[in-house]
Amino acid sequence: MRLAVDVMGGDHGCGVVVDGAILALKQNTKITRLFLVGRQEEIEKALRERKFHDERLEVVHASEVLAMTDKPVEGLRRKKDCSILKAIDLVKEGKAEGVVSLGNTGGLVAASTIRLRPLPGVDRPGILTVIPAPKNEFVLLDSGANTECRPIHLLHYAVMGNIYSRDVLGCKTPRVGILCNGTEENKGNALTLEAFKFCKQVDIEFVGNVEGHDLFSNRVDVVICDGFIGNIVLKTVESFAKGLASWLKSELTANPLRVMGAILAGGAFKKIKKRMDPDTYGGAPLLGLNGNIVKAHASARDVAVMNAIRLASEAAQSQINQTIVEAVALANQRLVAAKLIPSSTP
Amino acid sequence: MRLAVDVMGGDHGCGVVVDGAILALKQNTKITRLFLVGRQEEIEKALRERKFHDERLEVVHASEVLAMTDKPVEGLRRKKDCSILKAIDLVKEGKAEGVVSLGNTGGLVAASTIRLRPLPGVDRPGILTVIPAPKNEFVLLDSGANTECRPIHLLHYAVMGNIYSRDVLGCKTPRVGILCNGTEENKGNALTLEAFKFCKQVDIEFVGNVEGHDLFSNRVDVVICDGFIGNIVLKTVESFAKGLASWLKSELTANPLRVMGAILAGGAFKKIKKRMDPDTYGGAPLLGLNGNIVKAHASARDVAVMNAIRLASEAAQSQINQTIVEAVALANQRLVAAKLIPSSTP
Repeated sequence: MRLAVDVMGGDHGCGVVVDGAILALKQNTKITRLFLVGRQEEIEKALRERKFHDERLEVVHASEVLAMTDKPVEGLRRKKDCSILKAIDLVKEGKAEGVVSLGNTGGLVAASTIRLRPLPGVDRPGILTVIPAPKNEFVLLDSGANTECRPIHLLHYAVMGNIYSRDVLGCKTPRVGILCNGTEENKGNALTLEAFKFCKQVDIEFVGNVEGHDLFSNRVDVVICDGFIGNIVLKTVESFAKGLASWLKSELTANPLRVMGAILAGGAFKKIKKRMDPDTYGGAPLLGLNGNIVKAHASARDVAVMNAIRLASEAAQSQINQTIVEAVALANQRLVAAKLIPSSTP
Repeated sequence: MRLAVDVMGGDHGCGVVVDGAILALKQNTKITRLFLVGRQEEIEKALRERKFHDERLEVVHASEVLAMTDKPVEGLRRKKDCSILKAIDLVKEGKAEGVVSLGNTGGLVAASTIRLRPLPGVDRPGILTVIPAPKNEFVLLDSGANTECRPIHLLHYAVMGNIYSRDVLGCKTPRVGILCNGTEENKGNALTLEAFKFCKQVDIEFVGNVEGHDLFSNRVDVVICDGFIGNIVLKTVESFAKGLASWLKSELTANPLRVMGAILAGGAFKKIKKRMDPDTYGGAPLLGLNGNIVKAHASARDVAVMNAIRLASEAAQSQINQTIVEAVALANQRLVAAKLIPSSTP
């Protein structure tokens, strides 16, 4: 397994990303080559400081960094030697099978779409996020790659999310639903109403529309929506969890009795906190491209980076891209047969 | 203050709604007349069982009920004598100033829009929901009245939400933001990008785009979005809170030590639970109509119904509708002057 890590563009500098790469090399023997892409001097300094040597490591110099504030397409045009592009080009040239980046999400989506192209039959890539719920975990896609979606995009997200949930996460028969403002078939907006018809045609366990109430009550494993809504839902849940945790903490430390209680019951909080910890997942795969691209949180530290590298390696290993190409081709055929799309689309 | 309550259409039958009405009459001396609208026999039976008499109560018979499963417009056309329409007609006839209903949301929106008409200058009503956050509370609108919005609708929601937050909830200078997939001005979809330009023109404390991360971190008081997204966000937060609470409960009872801890720290949980309790708000006002309409949760019980009646009475008392008419007229003028809308719109 040969992977590339864009070590620039995270919130905490390149050191924590190098730390994550070292952890990954120590734990993951399947990695045969790990490219660290970024400013050579900074990376080599970080490696020297950590006194780390590994034959499998290779530094690839990139003189520029796509900043969070850069507009994706315009920034990529201006910064031709940026780390994100150089990392992706390693996949394009066949030197690596996957890429992990902590940088600008829009930039990563644009760069990988332009350089690697979508998989045959797929129109737009989508970001898949795994969200832990009390009794299961569900995947949400698109979480922010594609703000203005067409029905065919949602259908492809359903097909790809189903495969990821089954082949990577091990969910036997994923229940796939469209995120909507009600569960009835006639509920929704123009996009979801049409996508509903599409999803009924393909070989997935389609449970129809799901609403917000269904997300955390173990009724769906793959939640499909456009990237605008997906991004809002993901961040709302993160914000709510964070707000609630800090509120609970301040209430639990409000008097000595509560502090004592919190200590005794500490195991309960730790267990929930661990399960909800975004570091466990480390990153979110960008599905639908010729390559295995994983977006890690900009604020990721060593463990999260290590897990993001693990995700890229798992995706490459499970060869889901080949499975996606076959399933999407079949799905597109079904839609053509049902006269829902013309034969030349997408 | 004269108010009408549609006692049918809730999940728990008409008895709990009658209980809520009784509580409201006992606590709210400003109510001079309370119409209970629904099947006369059932209501009178409930009143007899409770041995309750009050001069201010008046039963208005309606032979039909719009069910949750009825399609709003089609159902209203078929069930001309349903309780929701009869309650709203009391406002239309000037006999009541406000209505509370637990029934079919789409039906309530359709019935009140058709019978009462939107306020002058307002194009579409919106449902406003109050959501408690650790350090403030924010209002979200539209929470589900208007699935397919135009930019002018979002602008009117901004104006109306600002007035409600200020005049009813007492927030001095509400911070108004558009719910978006990023905070930058160039982020968003076609709807929010245009609405952003509109909001910049009017007299509100417009903080621009807000993302999911901002909701529970005290950065915004009025969150504007279309009814499709608002409904999803509201239900997602409710679902997450509920899922987390039941998960925490099962972890806290997993062993005797934790049970002991949970008892000692019980005050902390109770305080948070009380603040998050949907019964505290009781209902969500439908803003932008000639009347004060409050939608209560279908699952509301006595206390929630009482609080929903309080909301309707507060809205009527604060005369926000007059304030809304003036502010919307001014806002529309500004948009015409800025050439963002033609002079005949809306």
